[in-house]
Amino acid sequence: MKILFKNVHLPEEYGFGMGSVNVLVNDKIIAYVGKDLPSGEADRIIEGQGNLLAPAFYNAHCHSAMTLFRGYGDDLALREWLDTKILPAEELLNDTRVYYGSVMAIAEMIKNGVVSFSDMYFFLDSTARAVGECGVKANISRSVVSFDPDLDVLTDSRIKEGLDAYNKWHNEFDGRLRVDMSVHAEYSNVEKCCRYVGELAKDLGTGIQLHLSETKSEHEKCIAERGMTPAEFFESTGVFDVPVTAAHCVWVSDSDIKILADKGVSVAHNPVSNLKLASGIMPYNKMRDAGINIALGTDGVASNNKLSVLREMQYAALIHKGNTYSACATRASDMIKCATENGARAQGREKCGRVEVGYNADLILVNMNSVNNIPVFSYDSALTYSACESDILITMCDGRILYEYGEYTSIDIEKITAEAKDVFAHYFD
Amino acid sequence: MKILFKNVHLPEEYGFGMGSVNVLVNDKIIAYVGKDLPSGEADRIIEGQGNLLAPAFYNAHCHSAMTLFRGYGDDLALREWLDTKILPAEELLNDTRVYYGSVMAIAEMIKNGVVSFSDMYFFLDSTARAVGECGVKANISRSVVSFDPDLDVLTDSRIKEGLDAYNKWHNEFDGRLRVDMSVHAEYSNVEKCCRYVGELAKDLGTGIQLHLSETKSEHEKCIAERGMTPAEFFESTGVFDVPVTAAHCVWVSDSDIKILADKGVSVAHNPVSNLKLASGIMPYNKMRDAGINIALGTDGVASNNKLSVLREMQYAALIHKGNTYSACATRASDMIKCATENGARAQGREKCGRVEVGYNADLILVNMNSVNNIPVFSYDSALTYSACESDILITMCDGRILYEYGEYTSIDIEKITAEAKDVFAHYFD
Repeated sequence: MKILFKNVHLPEEYGFGMGSVNVLVNDKIIAYVGKDLPSGEADRIIEGQGNLLAPAFYNAHCHSAMTLFRGYGDDLALREWLDTKILPAEELLNDTRVYYGSVMAIAEMIKNGVVSFSDMYFFLDSTARAVGECGVKANISRSVVSFDPDLDVLTDSRIKEGLDAYNKWHNEFDGRLRVDMSVHAEYSNVEKCCRYVGELAKDLGTGIQLHLSETKSEHEKCIAERGMTPAEFFESTGVFDVPVTAAHCVWVSDSDIKILADKGVSVAHNPVSNLKLASGIMPYNKMRDAGINIALGTDGVASNNKLSVLREMQYAALIHKGNTYSACATRASDMIKCATENGARAQGREKCGRVEVGYNADLILVNMNSVNNIPVFSYDSALTYSACESDILITMCDGRILYEYGEYTSIDIEKITAEAKDVFAHYFD
Repeated sequence: MKILFKNVHLPEEYGFGMGSVNVLVNDKIIAYVGKDLPSGEADRIIEGQGNLLAPAFYNAHCHSAMTLFRGYGDDLALREWLDTKILPAEELLNDTRVYYGSVMAIAEMIKNGVVSFSDMYFFLDSTARAVGECGVKANISRSVVSFDPDLDVLTDSRIKEGLDAYNKWHNEFDGRLRVDMSVHAEYSNVEKCCRYVGELAKDLGTGIQLHLSETKSEHEKCIAERGMTPAEFFESTGVFDVPVTAAHCVWVSDSDIKILADKGVSVAHNPVSNLKLASGIMPYNKMRDAGINIALGTDGVASNNKLSVLREMQYAALIHKGNTYSACATRASDMIKCATENGARAQGREKCGRVEVGYNADLILVNMNSVNNIPVFSYDSALTYSACESDILITMCDGRILYEYGEYTSIDIEKITAEAKDVFAHYFD
């Protein structure tokens, strides 16, 4: 199947300025990008009408099934929110509930131009099934928590669930689905467990997802109790010897930043969640200047309450200007990179996240003719500062259109929504 | 014309919890709110389908025609942005250009659920015409700048333009349009001018719009040069003796906050613009606790780059949590008030901004069935944290539907957009 996007604009880094180009997708791959029309016939021509064709978004940190808990316990302090709301609610999770939470999360992400997400949660079979059906990509992981210093790592059920998921699902659905290992965080794991999961990931040749220095108290408690920062702790346990995506990193020190840069750790920056849970503001500029691969994540819906990487991009662009008192502290073009290419790199997906020949066709067509985007002086600015989620007209993953002018192609949205509403309505019964 | 909204939900403060209600609009006024159906026939029944009926948004600070400059010079430091981009561009303004800038701004606002805005700019006839045609409300004002200590206030053309606009347009369009006076800011005006504009507004019985302590440097320079803060300066000139909307207030001191509270000054909080221009973060919590009427504004599109009070509400809710390290620092319900009722109060519009019998029917119907809002545990949370602009299904101003399921009723959007694009494209010719 050859699909031609005719007369579109690209983000500025591709060098076409305000000029329009044509992009040909052949099966899963971008086969042509240029001012002239490509040779040969296309099976379908999509008239770009001067809209923006951008790489689709990658969501670098999510707990997709937490869509079940959207708006459940907002405006509460973190500890109260966790102890009285989220943790008791999570006791009631099961396969069906996680399936509907995941499908609804994926439906929202597709609509918002997200084609791939990194996920830490439980009941991985359900999320895997949802990823397979909906046609997106994901790096899923079983979030491991351990408090027993004498933990028998070989028989621990949480570690086993992650390994089972790996054996069952890794590289399924034509490679769309991957399975990473995960240690939830420093404060929720014993050293022995971290060491073992690190070795396991190395043996399997897969990555690790974890939370790092999200709150001041967790960061300081680690220093007080272990005599080192969470980043130093993970480095000492060998966890950073495999490709890692570290979520949050709000309270990392300058020397932590050096560790992350040296070890090639990708950072999942979650600006909205960090504000909503009052964790603080990540030192984006220092991390960028250190050369760290910074991607963007939504975190779970319970602490966001949306799954929009576009929104994270807009928040990141703005809060780091305001927080550093420098209007040039962030650039629209950098934010687009964080939301796309850097996310693909964090997931270890090669040839993804760019509008370039030979790359996977993960693309979004963004309306530049809506009243909120007129006039356009810069396509990067328009996407970063003025676009709405509803400006995303088409979402394409691996060359397959998953969403087109309000319609889903891989999800029976009315049926799924009705079923999900029923499951959500009886959640606390 | 009687319009019945059947089976809708209201924000939580109205006391119906998660239950559904019926709301009857009779001509311009809300005639009934209750669980039962109202007596009598309605001319039109709008099936609420469990969606949220909220007060429409009021935009408390805008320069609407700056829509002309959307994305023109982003990511630049304030001084460079002003001197090399905005000020030279504003030299090229004329009636036609301001008209199209204003109409496109209003079109965007209507789509985003905004029915009224406070505006400081030039070429007021053009903005007034746009307000009249589009069916919205506005408090417009001619932004006065003066640097000559010997200014002849009686003949000054800027003051005269404001006065002419008042005489020509105040209370036109059935009261939808009002004309305020305006002094641009402390740093851009001599004392004599501020005194005179204050007296003028008092004589006319109208309000004043101004910028206050937007940046650290302007605030500190005022103290150094005048021996008082900008708030103290305006108080000393009598400007605060009339109803004032003070935009920004990022750098106000604790004693300034007391002045604003004592004088009943309304504050237009512009979180996105303050972040984008790196001005800083307004001390929202202190001002709220002092009892100040805090409304929300977008500022001009050039420093935003959107006209969405919904977005401002979401930013305000989140940044003040993150900035104070307290997840309960802001409440969704407070943000809804800032975005609606407080804005109406800032504009001096009585019986506006609430879903209550006897109030003007300024309403929005918000989709609670979109994937990004499911499930709903709290309608206040859904509107504040997860709703998208595209969830606004209906925008009603004074009982007249201006926007309905993607269609404008007062604007020929295709024609206007084509004309505006042409004007925008030749702006720098």
